Amino acid sequence: MKKQVRIGLVGYQFMGKAHSHAYRSLPFFFDTEVEPVLAAICGRNETAVKEAANQMGFESYETDWRSLIERDDIDVIDIVTPNNTHAEIAIAAAKAGKHVLTEKPLAMSVEEAEEMHDAVVSNQVIHMICHNYRFVPALTYAKKLIEEGKLGQIYHFRANYLQDFIMSPEFPLIWRLKKDVAGSGALGDLAAHSIDLAHYLVDDLTEIQALTKTFIKERPVGEMSGGLSATRAGEERGSVTVDDAVAIIGTFANGAMATFEATRFAGGNRNRNQIEINGEYGSIRWNMEDMNKLELYLAADAEGMQGFRTIDVTEESHPYMDAYWAAGHMIGYEHTFIHLIHEFMQGIATGKQPEPNFFDGLKNQAVLAAVEQAAETGQRQVVELPEIKTKSSK
Amino acid sequence: MKKQVRIGLVGYQFMGKAHSHAYRSLPFFFDTEVEPVLAAICGRNETAVKEAANQMGFESYETDWRSLIERDDIDVIDIVTPNNTHAEIAIAAAKAGKHVLTEKPLAMSVEEAEEMHDAVVSNQVIHMICHNYRFVPALTYAKKLIEEGKLGQIYHFRANYLQDFIMSPEFPLIWRLKKDVAGSGALGDLAAHSIDLAHYLVDDLTEIQALTKTFIKERPVGEMSGGLSATRAGEERGSVTVDDAVAIIGTFANGAMATFEATRFAGGNRNRNQIEINGEYGSIRWNMEDMNKLELYLAADAEGMQGFRTIDVTEESHPYMDAYWAAGHMIGYEHTFIHLIHEFMQGIATGKQPEPNFFDGLKNQAVLAAVEQAAETGQRQVVELPEIKTKSSK
Amino acid sequence: MKKQVRIGLVGYQFMGKAHSHAYRSLPFFFDTEVEPVLAAICGRNETAVKEAANQMGFESYETDWRSLIERDDIDVIDIVTPNNTHAEIAIAAAKAGKHVLTEKPLAMSVEEAEEMHDAVVSNQVIHMICHNYRFVPALTYAKKLIEEGKLGQIYHFRANYLQDFIMSPEFPLIWRLKKDVAGSGALGDLAAHSIDLAHYLVDDLTEIQALTKTFIKERPVGEMSGGLSATRAGEERGSVTVDDAVAIIGTFANGAMATFEATRFAGGNRNRNQIEINGEYGSIRWNMEDMNKLELYLAADAEGMQGFRTIDVTEESHPYMDAYWAAGHMIGYEHTFIHLIHEFMQGIATGKQPEPNFFDGLKNQAVLAAVEQAAETGQRQVVELPEIKTKSSK
Amino acid sequence: MKKQVRIGLVGYQFMGKAHSHAYRSLPFFFDTEVEPVLAAICGRNETAVKEAANQMGFESYETDWRSLIERDDIDVIDIVTPNNTHAEIAIAAAKAGKHVLTEKPLAMSVEEAEEMHDAVVSNQVIHMICHNYRFVPALTYAKKLIEEGKLGQIYHFRANYLQDFIMSPEFPLIWRLKKDVAGSGALGDLAAHSIDLAHYLVDDLTEIQALTKTFIKERPVGEMSGGLSATRAGEERGSVTVDDAVAIIGTFANGAMATFEATRFAGGNRNRNQIEINGEYGSIRWNMEDMNKLELYLAADAEGMQGFRTIDVTEESHPYMDAYWAAGHMIGYEHTFIHLIHEFMQGIATGKQPEPNFFDGLKNQAVLAAVEQAAETGQRQVVELPEIKTKSSK
Repeated sequence: MKKQVRIGLVGYQFMGKAHSHAYRSLPFFFDTEVEPVLAAICGRNETAVKEAANQMGFESYETDWRSLIERDDIDVIDIVTPNNTHAEIAIAAAKAGKHVLTEKPLAMSVEEAEEMHDAVVSNQVIHMICHNYRFVPALTYAKKLIEEGKLGQIYHFRANYLQDFIMSPEFPLIWRLKKDVAGSGALGDLAAHSIDLAHYLVDDLTEIQALTKTFIKERPVGEMSGGLSATRAGEERGSVTVDDAVAIIGTFANGAMATFEATRFAGGNRNRNQIEINGEYGSIRWNMEDMNKLELYLAADAEGMQGFRTIDVTEESHPYMDAYWAAGHMIGYEHTFIHLIHEFMQGIATGKQPEPNFFDGLKNQAVLAAVEQAAETGQRQVVELPEIKTKSSK
Repeated sequence: MKKQVRIGLVGYQFMGKAHSHAYRSLPFFFDTEVEPVLAAICGRNETAVKEAANQMGFESYETDWRSLIERDDIDVIDIVTPNNTHAEIAIAAAKAGKHVLTEKPLAMSVEEAEEMHDAVVSNQVIHMICHNYRFVPALTYAKKLIEEGKLGQIYHFRANYLQDFIMSPEFPLIWRLKKDVAGSGALGDLAAHSIDLAHYLVDDLTEIQALTKTFIKERPVGEMSGGLSATRAGEERGSVTVDDAVAIIGTFANGAMATFEATRFAGGNRNRNQIEINGEYGSIRWNMEDMNKLELYLAADAEGMQGFRTIDVTEESHPYMDAYWAAGHMIGYEHTFIHLIHEFMQGIATGKQPEPNFFDGLKNQAVLAAVEQAAETGQRQVVELPEIKTKSSK
Repeated sequence: MKKQVRIGLVGYQFMGKAHSHAYRSLPFFFDTEVEPVLAAICGRNETAVKEAANQMGFESYETDWRSLIERDDIDVIDIVTPNNTHAEIAIAAAKAGKHVLTEKPLAMSVEEAEEMHDAVVSNQVIHMICHNYRFVPALTYAKKLIEEGKLGQIYHFRANYLQDFIMSPEFPLIWRLKKDVAGSGALGDLAAHSIDLAHYLVDDLTEIQALTKTFIKERPVGEMSGGLSATRAGEERGSVTVDDAVAIIGTFANGAMATFEATRFAGGNRNRNQIEINGEYGSIRWNMEDMNKLELYLAADAEGMQGFRTIDVTEESHPYMDAYWAAGHMIGYEHTFIHLIHEFMQGIATGKQPEPNFFDGLKNQAVLAAVEQAAETGQRQVVELPEIKTKSSK
Repeated sequence: MKKQVRIGLVGYQFMGKAHSHAYRSLPFFFDTEVEPVLAAICGRNETAVKEAANQMGFESYETDWRSLIERDDIDVIDIVTPNNTHAEIAIAAAKAGKHVLTEKPLAMSVEEAEEMHDAVVSNQVIHMICHNYRFVPALTYAKKLIEEGKLGQIYHFRANYLQDFIMSPEFPLIWRLKKDVAGSGALGDLAAHSIDLAHYLVDDLTEIQALTKTFIKERPVGEMSGGLSATRAGEERGSVTVDDAVAIIGTFANGAMATFEATRFAGGNRNRNQIEINGEYGSIRWNMEDMNKLELYLAADAEGMQGFRTIDVTEESHPYMDAYWAAGHMIGYEHTFIHLIHEFMQGIATGKQPEPNFFDGLKNQAVLAAVEQAAETGQRQVVELPEIKTKSSK
């Protein structure tokens, strides 16, 4: 019988569902060394959280995250609440000796992120940040190819993350559009993912220039109602205080060029998260809309026969894929969370700190801060990483 | 508290895993009226079936399907064993008053299929055949568009189902390559799915011409080892007694033309299951390799602006998709089974017979028989449907 | 100064324009050994042919093809008139010692095709049939790869040729829809091209089954008015006497399976001429809609890195492409004719008979006849090739 | 008989061939009001220019462009020489009363561009700059859709122009890699095209941030040898003095966001020139690699049926396409020049100044200058347009 790891989930909307599903599905597909148990879910609205507990299969529920953290029967605090609450909850959890998983972006500022990082490191808990796209098998495989030198020296990383769900001026002013709750808009919600992939696949970003736009400046007050839908509350209108779109150009430590664009105003693009990398010996292309495919170009292919290969990253030999069906049988969005949770549970089982963790979150936060500064000043910014007191054990 | 429906699963390989996963995941995503419980799994190899029960979360296991059927605590018999066993198990299950779900093709012959259909109808149990591709949301949506008349009169249905997993002459002689166990090769395994989609989306097939090929006639003896992999047993070699590939041309009751090709010798195509339909007012294209997309052409679009639209069938308004994440977030292969099981459970809850059921399986079997006859004789065959004593209640 | 070859073109519509353009453009791009001169164009309507001569740059015009053939200053007769006129003109031209190029299909029957072949062979003229798709660089390159054994033994050839220009029931009854002028419909117009590619890339077809459909049986009388447009003549209606669509399945001499579908009722497909070939070691895919690309799968690629490569067949090393711009710069439809005319002129310069020629046209005609017979009888037909008195000199 | 316009072409490499071909092909396809005649070609190497004259069909040749301009029988000076020669030739040509067409970028600096503009305006000649991509029918059609308001207010323009022909460190130091001859690298060669499309399709660019990279700083000395190939001269090496890649982010006068990336280091991308535009009511996507297609998204499409349409911009109703074959029949790269030359000739025939002309070239030059300044300083730059003494007559 495997050791059980009891999960306390704070938050129950879109990401709460994705995380819950991952914990539930993990044992079916993976022979992880420990077994997660959906111990408790936490939310302020008792009716809603009770229903969520029932629907998602949690043993219990709480309406105050402090009570959840106080419980002895909880091993993990998983935080999927709005961004302005991450720090307080994560730090309290770490101090209580709980392992912590947090949605991205890690925090509201580099200072907050630094405190969070200090807390998890000094309390020696396992910590992760939910940059789930690292766990698309096609990208895990891309990482392997890059590490093996298949692309050689990297020259270019370009990323687009395009959505369109708030294009209507009548789409309500949800928390994601308020700076005091979300920190930023497309930047922290979408570009943060692309930045994490850049760090994962290429190198640290060192210099940044940026531009942000807010196309619709006022919207009816309202709130999320599941997925990326929302309901307006009445006639009242309020100000959008975050960016609708952000463009970033920059340089990596290794000299490569980076370009990023993230927007919620790209009509027809429901969730187009795509990257390209060009290196000395080859290139890759990937798009979340067709997430199981990896396009790979190898300059070493014979003359006349060169071209991007479209690889179905569904072979048994591909990362994570031996857990599933058969070559050519596609998996979906939710599996990125299963793979991340697998690594998180393995980290808890072995004591070996997985990635991406709060250190990665902190680096990401430093880039987000540089982007905001660069967008405001119109000047190139150096990405300043705070001195880390204790580097995460690995 | 929902009524529980206790599942007894016979077989535990590729399809056993897909079905088990579907039962487990159903309550998380759908508010189905009853709740399936993984009561027992059955297989002849006790060590293997015990391990499968543990891994997939079954309460118990059996090594003889007859014992499983005798159990009072089992409501459903789900059959995922090789094709030559479907009839005996399904008929016994129906006689015992169990609801029945069977993998496709339904049977080894039209006669067997007819007996199976008689058994489920006369015993008034709910029955389904696992043509899971009807439950790809993009195809369920295509069906809706066709029923609404968006394509007008249908002129063409063309389907390819291309795989490549047995192309190596050293790939072992698994059960799928033996006529006495599988009934046929690419025909029953792959083309049967395409034929079901033709029946679902267009009309009944009435006349058929066909051609089959067996490219590799002898292989080393061996067996499946998960997914679509296999292990050879030794030096012994045996004869391949099924088709490696089949091509079919035919006519629908409504006068439309049908073309089908199914093969396991199309290198580079791991699992390319694709269809196209051309009608008076529009066309659709779909490919399982990119299963969430539906391409739609509407002749009524303004001049100069006509073209196939690529629809992400991931909106809340699309079939089944309000159960999941958000527009633009892809689902994978396994969800086709979840949706089918949802309909099966709803059928059990309401007593309303879902589709595709044994009647659809019987019609499919009649086409398979006509194809084999046509391929052998080189002559056009009429698809002869046996007189059905009792039409399934709907 | 290069030797001039004086061209007499019979016909001036769609194909007349494509051929004229090719003769004109040839010297600009290719260092062909002889230089074609647009000597005369011939059509029955003097006003129209005069205007065509002026627009396309012919030195003179004729209104009777017999007069054209009698002229001493004409070296080549190029026939782009409706199919029922090919034989008479080509035979007369050959007897007059003119080299002959004919549009496809070669003739109205195998007998006619045989007489035509006899005429060109016994009169020792250079002859070609205008199966221009062989000269798409991507397909010429595919031929090279196949001949080098890159695909190994061929298992499958599948072709679709899909158009939609006559889908409206009010589209007029043009000559292409009349059996006595066109011979057949989608079969001779579209499938004939696919059959030629099958012969070119794989092997001779030996056995055939087929199905034809005519969806719209009556149309208003009218005629072509350029490209694939048409104008109706009045209120009168007439019968469509050719197939709107044809499906063919068959076997090659080497044992491979062939599937073909050609139709003018595939809405949204303006001119989708596509083929796929699957062999022992690899596969290719090609589509005229994106004619400069060749998709190539090689089973020998490293595990995990296998996938179809999309090759831009625009490198200097690719067939014909060193005549043009630079890698990545696309060429269009018209260049297929330039390349064919280049081979034709080289044949005239060197006396070496190019391909595809009347022998290829005759073989194609034998397949068309077998298809018609098979469609009528519903029985598998052997493709019967008439005994050739004199094999074309090569 | 049409009035003849006698062309004097200065330069005979890649672009010389493309321009010559366009003049030759124009009368075959378009009923332009005047007829261009290839009067003379000019180059310093007499042997090479004589051969070019012969191959491309020029009546005569010159070895000094000054002599060409002095000739009375020349109406047009077409300049396809390296960038550092444009100004001197164009100004001399204008002063001699010749109409002028110049390759892009217009000049080496804003000052030069301004002088050129003054010269053509004050001498009242017709002038164009060869931003040929405006004349891809898909983009001319996109312009029409945008002008009709189909996309509503524009939010985003994003462009990539990716090549890979100089990736090898042994690729020679051709003129395009020297600042004193080319002015800049990927910026003036590739991004200039994207900037022109931005100006054409969206609005003027007003503010710019930029980043440039030179990945290979030293190369063997050598020169172009046709197309994008080159030959090295010996063992000598020299410094690359231009950018290998450039990234630009900026703002349009109408508030939209612009992102550009141009590079010669994107392996596998031979010539990927692509743009996307997102507006209030719809989006478009286009890629020169598949130049006849336009992807169009319209938010007004019915719920559930929304998606990018892939339009074959090959219908008779599409810009320029009635001159060609039939719907679905693709045209290639060279036709962009034919269409541009058609507009140039029409401008000469009617006296109405076509676009893009030297004024567009001047605006483009101002953006290029701002990009270089922004890249150097790391600061946001305002695009400063010099005061135009005389606006081009339209």
